[in-house]
Formats: sequence, structure tokens, C-alpha cells
Amino acid sequence: MDVNKVSNKLRKFAEERNWEQFHSPKNLSMALAAEAAELLEIFQWLTEEQSKDIVKSEKEIAQVKEEIADVFIYLVRLADKLNIDIEKEVLAKIALNENKYPIDISKDNAVKYNRR
Amino acid sequence: MDVNKVSNKLRKFAEERNWEQFHSPKNLSMALAAEAAELLEIFQWLTEEQSKDIVKSEKEIAQVKEEIADVFIYLVRLADKLNIDIEKEVLAKIALNENKYPIDISKDNAVKYNRR
Amino acid sequence: MDVNKVSNKLRKFAEERNWEQFHSPKNLSMALAAEAAELLEIFQWLTEEQSKDIVKSEKEIAQVKEEIADVFIYLVRLADKLNIDIEKEVLAKIALNENKYPIDISKDNAVKYNRR
Amino acid sequence: MDVNKVSNKLRKFAEERNWEQFHSPKNLSMALAAEAAELLEIFQWLTEEQSKDIVKSEKEIAQVKEEIADVFIYLVRLADKLNIDIEKEVLAKIALNENKYPIDISKDNAVKYNRR
Repeated sequence: MDVNKVSNKLRKFAEERNWEQFHSPKNLSMALAAEAAELLEIFQWLTEEQSKDIVKSEKEIAQVKEEIADVFIYLVRLADKLNIDIEKEVLAKIALNENKYPIDISKDNAVKYNRR
Repeated sequence: MDVNKVSNKLRKFAEERNWEQFHSPKNLSMALAAEAAELLEIFQWLTEEQSKDIVKSEKEIAQVKEEIADVFIYLVRLADKLNIDIEKEVLAKIALNENKYPIDISKDNAVKYNRR
Repeated sequence: MDVNKVSNKLRKFAEERNWEQFHSPKNLSMALAAEAAELLEIFQWLTEEQSKDIVKSEKEIAQVKEEIADVFIYLVRLADKLNIDIEKEVLAKIALNENKYPIDISKDNAVKYNRR
Repeated sequence: MDVNKVSNKLRKFAEERNWEQFHSPKNLSMALAAEAAELLEIFQWLTEEQSKDIVKSEKEIAQVKEEIADVFIYLVRLADKLNIDIEKEVLAKIALNENKYPIDISKDNAVKYNRR
């Protein structure tokens, strides 16, 4: 994916509607959390097994896709406003996680490293 | 960014730690929302202006970068588990938004289309 | 519980620290969501059965108690700032839910009424 | 408010609909976070000043009241399932906060104690 292209599209979208006034990092962090919670809501009464089977429901998977897109959109907007290179940060974080969660002591155990 | 490459890296990371057992879509939606809220928390007592100036604080912007990476990571994991092509869905959603929020009636007005 | 007493205590707490400046409804809604997400995080990798058994872990249940208190505190603060009588609204909502979810068609089915 | 009475009403409501099967602590933490985010969404594009003035909009304040009730309802349900005495925990947390945020060093400063 060309994240820069998506980011530029979203910036143009906001500029054309004069929405940059609403897109402070604070507000974008709220919109992002609100969209993430809409995803959460889809799964709240499902068992874990049912959550895997959601791909079989055309209506529900369509909703999941839309919410995933919404989260992505606000995440890219927020990174754009703060001049953050998402790819660079994601790769750095994966490297960090490899150190925080060594395979041997993390096997079968998802406990957060600072609670071990 | 090569989202597939990131997605594969994350899958390998989970497999090596035997964490796929924890990564049901339900659980991933929870982890995603929890990370989005950590981003929210950074901004909660800041004014909108202060939220823009967060780039000037080395410590705080480092934290923002890490949380943005975390949200991205769980989003990519969730999409992977449900066989969702994020790029395709994001482009579809932007096209949808262009219809839902026509420039003329959306100018200066971020009210959600279903509340207009 | 005397919610007014709790509300007054919290108002005094904020006033003494000159924190009313931070407690706009917008900011309080962020703090509330952030605390709710900390609760979520405790349960994210647990199965539903494990989540019921959390009462057996002294350390974890203590954390749950603290997060529940935090959510309650911000909820009461927000209601106070907007002159909302929580008890009245809760009783009204329960009555509303009784109409939205009649026993016969809601039995064993938690699907949100607007998705039926 | 008689929280026990509200808690008993909610338990009866769930039992009559056979919804106890859905109300694991894990699921309730999701529903709680989802409702808190609906509150957040109302405020996301408002300035802090506009968020204070929301009381003037009949339609919006009605929505805020309903979401506050929803958060409260799931919080009470969760506490009930885990045998947590909310009032006791809230008073304990306020006392804890008085120690964590002494008036002199907290004046005009809402920075979380563990970041000072």
C-alpha cells in the first residue's frame, strides 16, 4: 500500500471541506478511539469462536471491513498531522517487541512484559 | 509500505510465541481499542492547541509514535485473521465518504451524515 | 450510595487543585473512555471463563476494583458538570430497555434492537 | 441512589431474557468501553467550550444522558458479577487520589502522578 498516497488523499478530502479546523491531534485521537470501539461493539456478545466465524456473515463482515477502514483512516490522518512515519514506527515497534517478548519466556504466555 | 510484509512479520511473531490461541478477532478488537485509548489518554488534558504542539516534546511524541504503531499492529493482525485487504477497504471507504459528504454541504461542517 | 455526596467530594477535590479548568465535558469524556479501556485491557487475553475467575486473583481483582472506581468517578464528574441526575437517567433507561427488548423476542438473544 | 436496587433490577432484567450467558466480565468490559466511546463520539468535533454548551441543545443533551445511563448500567452489572461494592471502592479511590495528588504540587497540574 502507498500510505503516503492515502494520506495525501485524506488531506485533500479534509482541505476541500475545510475540515482541517476539526482535525487537531486531540480530536483525531477521539475519532480513532470511537471507531475502534465500533469494531469492539460488533464482537461484544460473540464468543471467541463466533468471532472467527464472522467471515461467514456477509452483513457483519461488511461492517467489520468498514470499521477497520475507519480506524485506518483516522490513524493515517493523525500520523499526517504529527509528521509521523507510520511504517518506520511500526517496524521499530516490532523490533522492540522482539526484545520485550523473547520466544522462550513468552511461549503460550501473552502477559504484558511489565506485569511479569 | 508493504502491508503484507508487515502482516507476515506479525503472523510469524505470533506463531513463534504460540500466541495465535489468544488472537481471536474478538480479543484483537479489545487490544486495538485498548491501544487507541492509550493514545487518547495522552491528549485528554491538553487543549487542542497543546495537542498540536506535542511534536515539540521529545518524550511525549515518542509515546505517541509508539501507541500509533501499536494500533496499527493490532489493526493489521485483525485484518489478517479475517482475510481483509485493508488497502482495498480504505480506498472503498474514502470513495463512500466522498458521496456521503459532498463538498458543498459538508463545508465547515463535520456533522455525521446520519445526524444531518 | 449517596451519589450527591460523592459528586460533591469530587467537585471539592477538583476545585482545591484548580482542576476545573481541565474538566470540560469533552475532556471528561476522554478520561472516562480511557479508564474504561484500562478495564478492557485487563480482560483482553482472558477467555470468558477466566474472566469470571478473576475474583480468585487478589492482584487482578484489586486492579479491576480500582478501574471500576475510576470509571465511576469520571462518570459522576461528567454528570455533575452537565447537571445530569444519573439515578433518574438510569431508571429511565432501564424502563426504555424493557420496551426495546421485550422478554419473548429477546430471550437468549442479545442482538441490538436496531439490528433486528 | 440505591445502587443495590439498580443492580438487582438489572440482574432480574438479564435473567428474564436469559442474558446472563452473555454477561461474562470480559463481555461486560467490552460493552462498557463501547458505551463510553459513544459518549466520546458526541464530543469529538466540539471545542471544549462547545462541549460545555451542549446542555443548551435538547437533542444532544438527551443523547448524552442516555449514554451516561448506559455506561452506568454496564458498570453496575460488571461490579455485580464480580461482587464488587462500588461505593466502597470509589471512596477508597478518592482517598488514594488525595495522597497521590497533594494539593500543593497538583495545583493547576493534572499530570498523572506516575509521569511527574
